[in-house]
Amino acid sequence: MPSLDLNAVINAFEIVIPKGRRPAALHEPLFSGNEWSYVKDCLDSTWVSYVGGYVDKFEAMISEFTGIKGVVATVNGTMALHICLKLAGVEHGEEVLVPALTFIATANVVTYCGAVPHFVDSEEKTLGIDPAKLRIYLREKTKITGDGCFNKLTGRRIKALVPVHVFGHPVDMDPLVEICREFKITLVEDAAESIGSYYKNRHTGNWAKAAALSFNGNKTITTGGGGAILTNDEELARQAKHLTTTARVQHRWAFIHDMVGYNYRLPNINAALGCAQMEQLSSFLESKRRLAENYRKAFANIEGVRFFIEPEFAKSNYWLNVLLLDEAVAGERDRLLEVTNKEGIMTRPAWTLMHRLPMFRECPVMDLTVAKALEARMINIPSSPGLGKADA
Amino acid sequence: MPSLDLNAVINAFEIVIPKGRRPAALHEPLFSGNEWSYVKDCLDSTWVSYVGGYVDKFEAMISEFTGIKGVVATVNGTMALHICLKLAGVEHGEEVLVPALTFIATANVVTYCGAVPHFVDSEEKTLGIDPAKLRIYLREKTKITGDGCFNKLTGRRIKALVPVHVFGHPVDMDPLVEICREFKITLVEDAAESIGSYYKNRHTGNWAKAAALSFNGNKTITTGGGGAILTNDEELARQAKHLTTTARVQHRWAFIHDMVGYNYRLPNINAALGCAQMEQLSSFLESKRRLAENYRKAFANIEGVRFFIEPEFAKSNYWLNVLLLDEAVAGERDRLLEVTNKEGIMTRPAWTLMHRLPMFRECPVMDLTVAKALEARMINIPSSPGLGKADA
Repeated sequence: MPSLDLNAVINAFEIVIPKGRRPAALHEPLFSGNEWSYVKDCLDSTWVSYVGGYVDKFEAMISEFTGIKGVVATVNGTMALHICLKLAGVEHGEEVLVPALTFIATANVVTYCGAVPHFVDSEEKTLGIDPAKLRIYLREKTKITGDGCFNKLTGRRIKALVPVHVFGHPVDMDPLVEICREFKITLVEDAAESIGSYYKNRHTGNWAKAAALSFNGNKTITTGGGGAILTNDEELARQAKHLTTTARVQHRWAFIHDMVGYNYRLPNINAALGCAQMEQLSSFLESKRRLAENYRKAFANIEGVRFFIEPEFAKSNYWLNVLLLDEAVAGERDRLLEVTNKEGIMTRPAWTLMHRLPMFRECPVMDLTVAKALEARMINIPSSPGLGKADA
Repeated sequence: MPSLDLNAVINAFEIVIPKGRRPAALHEPLFSGNEWSYVKDCLDSTWVSYVGGYVDKFEAMISEFTGIKGVVATVNGTMALHICLKLAGVEHGEEVLVPALTFIATANVVTYCGAVPHFVDSEEKTLGIDPAKLRIYLREKTKITGDGCFNKLTGRRIKALVPVHVFGHPVDMDPLVEICREFKITLVEDAAESIGSYYKNRHTGNWAKAAALSFNGNKTITTGGGGAILTNDEELARQAKHLTTTARVQHRWAFIHDMVGYNYRLPNINAALGCAQMEQLSSFLESKRRLAENYRKAFANIEGVRFFIEPEFAKSNYWLNVLLLDEAVAGERDRLLEVTNKEGIMTRPAWTLMHRLPMFRECPVMDLTVAKALEARMINIPSSPGLGKADA
């Protein structure tokens, strides 16, 4: 049985993360800019809640950075994605295609709409949905009518497709856009992990009807907890804002709400933090790409493992760096996790595939050969921007 | 036609809120304690998100203050109430009794569970649910079986009752507890507005299976956005924490979730603000009760209006103070709103009754004579703790 040279792996880590820089977390935030100044200003103004200039400013900064016209800041990425599905018109009893290899939120929000997640396979090149395999599957398993695309087995309409830019690495969007056109399915991007990631020179989130970002504490930039809905459709952006602010109709003083809405707006104090973080995003991305380059070099000649590199059509934020074990040594994953964590190098496996979780066991699922292989072979390694600083 | 002496009303306001203190908002927060110091400490620690000591500390402070054992902090009060209904076991297709006179969140969260709000009337004494009228209504309109209480008209099970402590004033809980026992209905308290309010010497939130608090920017204390689930049942508290943290099962590194959960936890940076606010809560309550007393005296002899005073069984936080117009002059409400707002005294009417909103028009509803009268006669007046400071 081939085995992994754990000493060689640890030595490779030593080049990138010398002992003096450990313990190295998976991803920790850097507050090296105007964080305190903006948060203090927000406190002094007493406008800490749902009114106040920082939310507007934060949204404008995201819009400028991503090139996406409509931005609506939310309490977190999960809630942003929930509203994206609402904007896509996902309804009770419908199905939504999501990768089996993703964070739980992608599947959970489908159920918040009363819909059913339908799990699809990934490709090793992007870690995201495999478009070629998905097209073949849909041609075989669905029927297109004037009312949309229907799962022949369950009879349910397949309303939306939600590719995820896994660990920040862009999915191959062009063929997914084509698939959505062919099968009359609405495209929603889960860009929770991919701020600062580009597909064919445009920022992720630009391909779908709506996309969601996350600013959780472990993301490239953070607002404590936070997220945003992105859309290039002005009318959808207006709807997103309406839905996230309890669907209250503008009036001098009367409380009139014209539909069931949500209390999903980002508070101003969190947005203040976000504005300071956005100012540093470009430098964080530089650091993170430098760190990835350091990893690439350090692991170039280590047998049995491969450092994941962005596909040729993408420029990735390398949110969470990935080591892929060769299939032959996948059985050593847990030993690798043990040793690295013991050395103060925080690592963890990928998420458990969604279809294995008890609440999703009855959901429709396609063949998941690649997702299962990735689940068994993949680990995340320290990725904080601080680890890639030039002076490190 | 009797008319209201608007000059007399303005003169009464002048005693409580002299011109130098205007414009007077309806409710603005006071950051006069350790807000800066705790928020800065939180930023310096970099633990701004879902891990960090302030959330635990904030929950412990609320627990001590309310005397309620289990406290789980959430992103806001709406999300807290959603989880309370989940804890009460509210399911798709069931009904939940809520007052027609409430903020939209109370009705919205029922629909998040796939259930239907069923609107009930209020009493003038508390501004909350009228227990006597509700009992008569339920005896007539429902049937109790081994499986619970069923609406004879719709056939749906009535699973829960959600009294709201409207504007912070405690509802008459004892008879509601009895009703829930008689009709096999689960009691959930919407205490979003009532931190610091007591019913028969116990803090609100102590009577129900679970209760929700809000720390929105306009509440007695604020975390920017925030809320909390309260329950004296340890197992329910554990469930609440599980449900609000994506139902992730404890594991060194694996991602296992055992049910559909939510991303509803309060970020640490917001909790840091909350800890500083909790330290001042008692002094805020003193100021607010002093302000209410000032209003009571100022309006004691003004004809046509009455300042709302807590019922004898309650000690209220007077979150939002209320002026009630006599029925004879209710038609002058909008003129009163115009004049006061023009004078820099921010006022607003009560919420539009829920059954009038387009998305709730088909919901079951009982006779709402009193709620309708209150809706027409009630206005909220400035209530910030700063207005009641002893040195004001």
